[in-house]
Amino acid sequence: MLGRMMQMPLLISSLLRHAVRWHGDSEIVSRLVEGGIARTTWTQLGERACQLAHVLNDWGVQRGDRVGTLAWNNQRHVETYFAVSASGAVCHTINPRLFPDQIVWIINDAEDTHVFFDLSFVKLVEQIAPRCPSVKSWIAYTDSEHMPVMTPQALCYETLIAGRQTEFDWPQLDENEASSLCYTSGTTGNPKGVLYSHRSTVLHAYCVCLPDTMSVSAADCVLPVVPMFHVNAWGTPYAIALTGAKLVLPGPALDGPSLASLMADEGVTLTAGVPTVWLGLLKHLKEAGQKLPALQRVVIGGAAAPPAMIRQFAEMGITVRHAWGMTEMSPLGTVCTLKTKHTDMSSEAREAVLLKQGRPIFGVDLKIVDAEGRELPRDGKAFGDLMVRGPWILESYFKGAGGDVLQDGWFATGDVSTIDPDGYMGITDRSKDVIKSGGEWISSIDLENHAMAHPAVAEAAAIGVRHPKWDERPILVVVKKPGADLTRDMLLEFMRDKIAKWWMPDDVVFVEDLPHTATGKLSKKDLRERLRDYALPGV
Amino acid sequence: MLGRMMQMPLLISSLLRHAVRWHGDSEIVSRLVEGGIARTTWTQLGERACQLAHVLNDWGVQRGDRVGTLAWNNQRHVETYFAVSASGAVCHTINPRLFPDQIVWIINDAEDTHVFFDLSFVKLVEQIAPRCPSVKSWIAYTDSEHMPVMTPQALCYETLIAGRQTEFDWPQLDENEASSLCYTSGTTGNPKGVLYSHRSTVLHAYCVCLPDTMSVSAADCVLPVVPMFHVNAWGTPYAIALTGAKLVLPGPALDGPSLASLMADEGVTLTAGVPTVWLGLLKHLKEAGQKLPALQRVVIGGAAAPPAMIRQFAEMGITVRHAWGMTEMSPLGTVCTLKTKHTDMSSEAREAVLLKQGRPIFGVDLKIVDAEGRELPRDGKAFGDLMVRGPWILESYFKGAGGDVLQDGWFATGDVSTIDPDGYMGITDRSKDVIKSGGEWISSIDLENHAMAHPAVAEAAAIGVRHPKWDERPILVVVKKPGADLTRDMLLEFMRDKIAKWWMPDDVVFVEDLPHTATGKLSKKDLRERLRDYALPGV
Repeated sequence: MLGRMMQMPLLISSLLRHAVRWHGDSEIVSRLVEGGIARTTWTQLGERACQLAHVLNDWGVQRGDRVGTLAWNNQRHVETYFAVSASGAVCHTINPRLFPDQIVWIINDAEDTHVFFDLSFVKLVEQIAPRCPSVKSWIAYTDSEHMPVMTPQALCYETLIAGRQTEFDWPQLDENEASSLCYTSGTTGNPKGVLYSHRSTVLHAYCVCLPDTMSVSAADCVLPVVPMFHVNAWGTPYAIALTGAKLVLPGPALDGPSLASLMADEGVTLTAGVPTVWLGLLKHLKEAGQKLPALQRVVIGGAAAPPAMIRQFAEMGITVRHAWGMTEMSPLGTVCTLKTKHTDMSSEAREAVLLKQGRPIFGVDLKIVDAEGRELPRDGKAFGDLMVRGPWILESYFKGAGGDVLQDGWFATGDVSTIDPDGYMGITDRSKDVIKSGGEWISSIDLENHAMAHPAVAEAAAIGVRHPKWDERPILVVVKKPGADLTRDMLLEFMRDKIAKWWMPDDVVFVEDLPHTATGKLSKKDLRERLRDYALPGV
Repeated sequence: MLGRMMQMPLLISSLLRHAVRWHGDSEIVSRLVEGGIARTTWTQLGERACQLAHVLNDWGVQRGDRVGTLAWNNQRHVETYFAVSASGAVCHTINPRLFPDQIVWIINDAEDTHVFFDLSFVKLVEQIAPRCPSVKSWIAYTDSEHMPVMTPQALCYETLIAGRQTEFDWPQLDENEASSLCYTSGTTGNPKGVLYSHRSTVLHAYCVCLPDTMSVSAADCVLPVVPMFHVNAWGTPYAIALTGAKLVLPGPALDGPSLASLMADEGVTLTAGVPTVWLGLLKHLKEAGQKLPALQRVVIGGAAAPPAMIRQFAEMGITVRHAWGMTEMSPLGTVCTLKTKHTDMSSEAREAVLLKQGRPIFGVDLKIVDAEGRELPRDGKAFGDLMVRGPWILESYFKGAGGDVLQDGWFATGDVSTIDPDGYMGITDRSKDVIKSGGEWISSIDLENHAMAHPAVAEAAAIGVRHPKWDERPILVVVKKPGADLTRDMLLEFMRDKIAKWWMPDDVVFVEDLPHTATGKLSKKDLRERLRDYALPGV
């Protein structure tokens, strides 16, 4: 027997309609690429989104067609998010920081019919356009006054929408239709597209706003530092429409002083981004002696926040919320907030909890499994491959890339983690980096952290090398600090009382420097290939 | 083109699973009908819900079968909520405060196969059981020690579930399947059932937890005073499972001293209920000089909260949130919280906002319409029939009672309201009470409030009477205070500068007393019937 409630699909057009109708004068403030600050409201943004939808309509953009963006966080980008998705097309946000070859590959794979771009990317567009045959037009996010002369000649965003009708009859879509597309910057192989639906986006937006997630209300002023080309800025544009909070968009200026002045001027209460950005902000605040009295919460994801960062914010009365997720998860999976039971704990004990990646938001389920797929205990000690499932988690990649990626209905995150009895998940390693010795797992990150604690170590990588008896055994690859005196035995002795005996690296290899990826991460893949047979007899 | 996200239905079993898995040691504290306090955790509650599901299974309860409850807010009632709905049957909460004849009618209409009841209702069950042929068994929420001797002999809840398996393989239902049933206590005609679905219940649970709704987090301790037989206690049991907050259940003891001691002992941070209950609580706190330092938020719904009540709570540092909804709406439609723009307003201006019924939660859409169904402006002045729609709003009543109840896809709430430019809705009247004079509407409640402000008026009712030219004109029906001196002209003169000229009642009828309904509300229906032709010539 079915319930007798209204069948109303969860649609992105409903989010826009809600914001315009109930929060018409809530502000959207943008720092422009052209210079200066633009201020608008949901009433105006809604009208401009309708105007843009008429443009898309005239172009013959069909339901399911992909429309690309190469842009920072700004008002026009938000308009495009809503106009494209609400009208039934797919908003494909492209990361302009990728190599041009990757961008070309992604646009061709997505078969984008039109691409909107910020003026920062004129050169990039000129470079890639000849190799993107599906793109019928490139649209510059600017007015006629600032239009660049370029080849191919772009269209002017403001000229296109000017004078169009400010109402649009958004189609009543199936909530499972595709709404947006974001490619993973996979470390191996070609990027793969994650195709979100209206349903997954709206459910995720509810979850973003929950008190234990980002806690967004109509009284908040939110500045997403995380780019809108990075998993839809973690869903913040949708969360803002859902709640009517004020939205502040930093454009291309993500340096400490620029962020601090925008936050102070606009009264930002909530912000979100990766640790690197906060290093810059905290450095500036300290040097300039500046305070941000309105700021209450900083959501940190993308990488683990160092304890010192959490402490520095806490000293300013600002709460850090560790978040974890991935492109395949829309992206939020877990957020770290405290439970009632932590209220009376010491601040050290609370800080230890806050260093973890957090508890799953309702909708997301997690488990850790061993190499055979058996669930491991949630005791805070066992660690295994972290598996997830939920209505805003990917079932398969765009166009079926990579084939069937689920295991028994669960998505393998590629992370290795623990889960403690209170439900807090802590990332221990990446699945491909964890060292599998005699059926037991050793965390490469743990070994590196212990090695790096030695004052003579500049950088360290722990990798597994082949072993005739144990399959794999750990070794350390170490760069010494200039002029430092350090031997294999000195380092291992230093680590002896800190780790389990069978975790102890079999050897230490000293090198001049370690290989890094384009984004500055340690490339253990290269090291593993070079040293794979290091421990085998006769090598 | 469909998105490529997991198809995971929104189910009540997922809420239970989430609470058990991620908040296993979160407490559920209940004041028992048998006396004393019971404490349990989600781990134990989840096991007991599984045990109960095995009982239902053994009884042959099928998907869609209705299982009734006649109970206060307590742990066993929560177990029943989850066991019944999660196993695919429909949890039918029955209001034990109705007249026995109404309860019999409701149980027979619902065709409940089993009914669970608290010991408070033994006499009631004995009275109604012979007239409820569909009910195969009556189950007393108690242990063998406290089992009542009664006719028919009830089954013992604790004996039934004892020793059963503590795991249950919850079925993977369609999220649109029915989960729960609640009858409206309609003032006219027979009660009608509202049949919620898993989807509507889960979406509503997300919305209950939002910062601008009740704002529920894992660090909260929530005491729903609103009964679980009253629109599922406004969704709080589901919201608790979603967040892992501590749950405190007051059982039958809803008087001021009992509530205050439970709140103080358990550290309640959030509570919800109707104004009457808070009168009792505030009176007790004042008399006893007691404080509730942990209490942060009081959600008030069911009727408008008097300004003095909001102020009294505010003086204790407690925020009142006005909420509005109805059984047909799961029930939440609007909640009154402030926006950023109100921050710098005077406390008087803020209080004026907080007296309204609030802004719609995302998912609910509102509009006000005139008698011809045309939408009226949201200017805070125009008032009209309040229409709603959304995924947790009824499409039709159980068994199709009342036929097609929607107008163009909208549900008519029966309330008359304004909506101001900031989106705040304020109830002005009930649709059936509003006075329609020459195509314009006059609020009966406004007229009554102005009349009652006269010191010589004990009670006043404003009703519309037939008029040859204006269709309807208002008259006042007034009870004077004992010994007071008051004439028609004195009262009208008193009101003259307070209301529009055409709102001025045509006459004042003095009576000894006014008719009231069983629940103490003014029965204007009776008055209208009696005085309908009062203003017609020759009457």
